[in-house]
Amino acid sequence: MPTRIYLDHAATTPMLPEVIARMHSLMEDTWGNPSSIHAEGRTSKALLEKARKSMAAHFHCAIGELFFTSGATESNNMILRGAVQGLGVDTIITAPTEHHAVLHTLETLQEGGVVKVLLLPVDHRGQPVLRDLENHLTQLHGHRVLVSLMHANNETGALLSLENVGALCLEHGAYFHSDSVQSVGFYPLNFQQLPVHFLTGSAHKFNGPKGVGFALVRGGTGIPPLQWGGPQERNMRGGTENLLGIAGMALALDLALVDREARLQYLQSLKEHFFHGLRAALPDVEINGPELADGHPKILNLSLPHNAATDMFLFNLDIAGISASGGSACTSGSDAGSHVIRAMYPGRDRVNVRFSFSHLNTLSEINQAVAIISGIYHK
Amino acid sequence: MPTRIYLDHAATTPMLPEVIARMHSLMEDTWGNPSSIHAEGRTSKALLEKARKSMAAHFHCAIGELFFTSGATESNNMILRGAVQGLGVDTIITAPTEHHAVLHTLETLQEGGVVKVLLLPVDHRGQPVLRDLENHLTQLHGHRVLVSLMHANNETGALLSLENVGALCLEHGAYFHSDSVQSVGFYPLNFQQLPVHFLTGSAHKFNGPKGVGFALVRGGTGIPPLQWGGPQERNMRGGTENLLGIAGMALALDLALVDREARLQYLQSLKEHFFHGLRAALPDVEINGPELADGHPKILNLSLPHNAATDMFLFNLDIAGISASGGSACTSGSDAGSHVIRAMYPGRDRVNVRFSFSHLNTLSEINQAVAIISGIYHK
Repeated sequence: MPTRIYLDHAATTPMLPEVIARMHSLMEDTWGNPSSIHAEGRTSKALLEKARKSMAAHFHCAIGELFFTSGATESNNMILRGAVQGLGVDTIITAPTEHHAVLHTLETLQEGGVVKVLLLPVDHRGQPVLRDLENHLTQLHGHRVLVSLMHANNETGALLSLENVGALCLEHGAYFHSDSVQSVGFYPLNFQQLPVHFLTGSAHKFNGPKGVGFALVRGGTGIPPLQWGGPQERNMRGGTENLLGIAGMALALDLALVDREARLQYLQSLKEHFFHGLRAALPDVEINGPELADGHPKILNLSLPHNAATDMFLFNLDIAGISASGGSACTSGSDAGSHVIRAMYPGRDRVNVRFSFSHLNTLSEINQAVAIISGIYHK
Repeated sequence: MPTRIYLDHAATTPMLPEVIARMHSLMEDTWGNPSSIHAEGRTSKALLEKARKSMAAHFHCAIGELFFTSGATESNNMILRGAVQGLGVDTIITAPTEHHAVLHTLETLQEGGVVKVLLLPVDHRGQPVLRDLENHLTQLHGHRVLVSLMHANNETGALLSLENVGALCLEHGAYFHSDSVQSVGFYPLNFQQLPVHFLTGSAHKFNGPKGVGFALVRGGTGIPPLQWGGPQERNMRGGTENLLGIAGMALALDLALVDREARLQYLQSLKEHFFHGLRAALPDVEINGPELADGHPKILNLSLPHNAATDMFLFNLDIAGISASGGSACTSGSDAGSHVIRAMYPGRDRVNVRFSFSHLNTLSEINQAVAIISGIYHK
């Protein structure tokens, strides 16, 4: 494959060389079952708990509040379904801009008749309307309510104030779950201080391996397991642990956080440079979601009018060596377009493209991408 | 760590060098999200479907019948809970010798009031009494019944006849699920011919990575997902696929099956050699489960009387460099002993040890192990 310009880091990220080297070495010498009591097992158990301790330190949570899973989709299912089963939640308030891991899980729960789901309106910057949230919470006095709103939107980068939403939930005695898949490793998430009950993440969004993630569950918030079996994860998740993935995830998080602020600044500079370059070449381009200075600096969602150049836009970008996305990777196989953009701009008909950056992208790649996109647009 | 003799391959297995090399190379160059439509995504998607095709060919199943999961515990949960939700199953017949991934899931379903669970008696060889199964099936006419009985018992190696049980299920219109974790890669599992609806496996039991497994679901048997989200696995399991693990699992299965019969014979010879050696040195030793010539050749479960030498037996074996197990690794942290052995020998009070072999063990290791164990016993 010739050198490509990968601008789809919200879909997934390459693994860092340090993570690859660590996992390679573990594959060779640390393969015991952490539940076994012999030497091989104890070595694996020690590695597992070292990873847990290291991640818990980053999140300022108790080690008993961190559960390893196969990824954020599982974590979100565990929490949402567990809140209904274990906490007696009868109403869940969410937004139409959530990831399908949340929305489809909630649809299923609602169809099963066990819970009522309320969707908040969202504004054209991707923010759920908090006055409506407050009204719902006030009217739902006497109900067990869970609010599920993501921290950083995966398509637009819209950032929710966990403090503001959490304060409202606290005031009204509601549980608060936030899918934090896109913000883990990019924003400080101090679980001790944040007014949230549940956070979730996936390693492959911060240069770790696929197939592994975690859930933070506030101590004493008793939700049942999603998968039953052995006593792994303190009886919260049966099944032999993905030790390799967990160790890779812990290292990837270390590496993301050691440089966090510098990376975030760099991403913001890439995003602005890219947008200004494109704007100069394509005056029709508009931002979907937060203003350029706001939102997650790794994500820039743009719209363009329908025309001969944009109707096969992603396809042509790909041919030209640029990887971008029409929305969430998880829905790119479908023709329905983005449910997030539809919710934010109902009735609008433009071509939407998400570009998402990482600290691995160079300014030179960004300049090349602008030139290539400009060429496609003006051909 | 000094050289050890690892005889706990039913708990987990080391990864083969070929699998490590393949996964190492994929970590570096195949990291796209299989759901992305650009080049990186398509490369990953092709790899994912190649793994599915290769595994489906081994199982003689349709590619649409094979679903990747995070391991057999997830697969078993997906099937058991899905059968109740999606197939209207109201009664599940199983045995007390099943793995906790089955038993605990069923207990939870029964406690939830959605299903009645019937436990078959098992004989002292670990075989569930099929006459009782037949009686239940006959009496349950008009009910939707699922039979869940494992293929190879993880503690004793007792082998179930999938043909006989499946024929009974077929005759009575019951669904048949078999946890085949310990038999995948060791026995031919022809899903096209076997009268089973559901089979499950975990890669780390056949020298693949931990954290990945699969479920075979007979076409047209409509069970719902366990975790909702994106359209991955044909809408049966949301979440970005563990591509690395899946590719490693497919290769590990290839390697297991290319040599299957020779390995099985070799394992049988190791098991017999080990047992005869031990028997000569420890006349009190008895086999738990199938006769020496029967059962899975990788598993040998033995009992010894309580005495000064056996009361800390596993501990002393470990100190002396031998890794074995008191039962399932998933329960080794608990003091309750083996629920499997209790079910087979109610009221009996002996010390039970499971030894489990692999093609990686040498005859010399087996001889050394016999000498070491004899030394511990006669000290």
